[in-house]
Amino acid sequence: MTEFDLIQRLIPNLPTNSSVIAGAGHDCAVVDIGLAGEFLLLKTDAVVEGVHFTAETEAPRVGHKALGRCLSDFAAMAGTPRHAMVTLGLPPGFDPEWIDGLYAGMRLLAERHGIAIVGGETTCNPERIFISVTVTGVLPKNRMILRAGAKPGDVIFVTGELGGSILGKHLDFEPRLTEARWLAENFSIHSMMDLSDGIAGDLRHILQSSGVGAELLGRAIPVSRAARQKARTALPGKGNLEIEVDTSGQALLAALTDGEDFELLFTVGSADAVPLLDAWKQRFSTLKISCVGKITVKPGLRLQDKFGLRPLNVSGYTHFS
Amino acid sequence: MTEFDLIQRLIPNLPTNSSVIAGAGHDCAVVDIGLAGEFLLLKTDAVVEGVHFTAETEAPRVGHKALGRCLSDFAAMAGTPRHAMVTLGLPPGFDPEWIDGLYAGMRLLAERHGIAIVGGETTCNPERIFISVTVTGVLPKNRMILRAGAKPGDVIFVTGELGGSILGKHLDFEPRLTEARWLAENFSIHSMMDLSDGIAGDLRHILQSSGVGAELLGRAIPVSRAARQKARTALPGKGNLEIEVDTSGQALLAALTDGEDFELLFTVGSADAVPLLDAWKQRFSTLKISCVGKITVKPGLRLQDKFGLRPLNVSGYTHFS
Repeated sequence: MTEFDLIQRLIPNLPTNSSVIAGAGHDCAVVDIGLAGEFLLLKTDAVVEGVHFTAETEAPRVGHKALGRCLSDFAAMAGTPRHAMVTLGLPPGFDPEWIDGLYAGMRLLAERHGIAIVGGETTCNPERIFISVTVTGVLPKNRMILRAGAKPGDVIFVTGELGGSILGKHLDFEPRLTEARWLAENFSIHSMMDLSDGIAGDLRHILQSSGVGAELLGRAIPVSRAARQKARTALPGKGNLEIEVDTSGQALLAALTDGEDFELLFTVGSADAVPLLDAWKQRFSTLKISCVGKITVKPGLRLQDKFGLRPLNVSGYTHFS
Repeated sequence: MTEFDLIQRLIPNLPTNSSVIAGAGHDCAVVDIGLAGEFLLLKTDAVVEGVHFTAETEAPRVGHKALGRCLSDFAAMAGTPRHAMVTLGLPPGFDPEWIDGLYAGMRLLAERHGIAIVGGETTCNPERIFISVTVTGVLPKNRMILRAGAKPGDVIFVTGELGGSILGKHLDFEPRLTEARWLAENFSIHSMMDLSDGIAGDLRHILQSSGVGAELLGRAIPVSRAARQKARTALPGKGNLEIEVDTSGQALLAALTDGEDFELLFTVGSADAVPLLDAWKQRFSTLKISCVGKITVKPGLRLQDKFGLRPLNVSGYTHFS
């Protein structure tokens, strides 16, 4: 059973109440607790030693990642995070200085976004460090963007570059909070999410929620230098021209399926696409944005590459499989 | 390093912002996000296989405990929980039916208190099940009860009976949410917390926060049947009169130091003590309440028993020690 199967099994039976606007299955939960003009957003996530980082990873980078993953989900909904809580599962004999470093990494990121760490819990997890982070914050009621809003004809955008995150970005990524709020304030964003499991897998969530399909344009996918580097390293005989051709395919596959990009994936009506591109370049000159495809009435996900338009039958990262 | 040492080391450096009313070190964090007349409460906690439950523990009881621990902290502040999120760390090859049972236990408790489970995260923890729960809710701004409000002369109360929780109550306890709100609505409660690490340890948190001391009356401590049973089982030759005398001391020690009672510990001005006792018996006829001692100007914690008034030099449960 994959984590997606497990989640699909659990969601229908979760207890709910009248305040829930969007519950499990969204990047953040959205609830109405009576704030004038705002919803409360809730998000929880975890990183585990040996799964999301290694015993050798520098503690501040682990802290950055642990908090950053939740913030990336806030970005996915163009929300504003305000408060965080941290639960640590620690083996006996843990190193207090490592924990100091962990918190230093979280603190830097939290302070940059005005977030208070208001508590948490410490307990024992004998074999490895387990870090669970919860973030709460707010979202203007009239600016809620869900995965379910994609419409046929929408243009699909991604920020940054994709793939090869394992070479470093998975620890050092910047959650796109500022960019997401700017998008929500200035354009009609039909659907949005953050890329955590690879666009080939994540885009399917938008497609399924919205009841639509999509075509991705292979040569428009912003393949990161890390994805190319990873592709070259993975193949023998680098330097050989034939192999070079293959590595570009491998690098594209990495960009489509590697996890932990933590970039924004969103769709807008086609009339907004060019104005958005122009305004983005004025506002965020150092962060790439790419138009990578379009939403279609026809269901399913297809890739247009040099071999034609074909079903994209790869998926993203999943635990337990 | 104990968990308390670790927490004391971390708290001074946590990032904060202007919305934080009470942060780390309180039963729940209290923040002001602009709700008319109410604060937002935040709490996170975790239970771990082999630490808080065993591989043999029935899944619904684990779910009840995982959520119930957070709710007990809401009770400690007389708050109203509204939303919960659940992060699961699971070994590969976990049993989906066990997870169904876990959620069934959480659902029963959540529905009894009108709480929605609005999401969570699943990830891999290879060796054992790790369950982190976060709960958010609200509290009237004019009814905030902290650990720091105890005053010399206050009478100290506890609900229920103490000790021996390991024999079953640690899984099946009822968080005292209704009782706590009733107390806060009807009396001036000076300080309150929930008993998670034994009154001998937990009361010290109230004393330190409030800058006071306390005397406990040994014969007034409501020693549970489970604490007596545990004391008898732990000693050889049960049935012997001399041993019986010893077991009563052992049972009292258990009531003072065993963890996971999840009862309320609170203090009120002495003039309120008798009216409170009378009103309690009318309102909650099946739940015991005990006046167990008084707050003193003199610092430290002392126990009055048949040997006189002596410093109580035992402490509660702690991880990592």
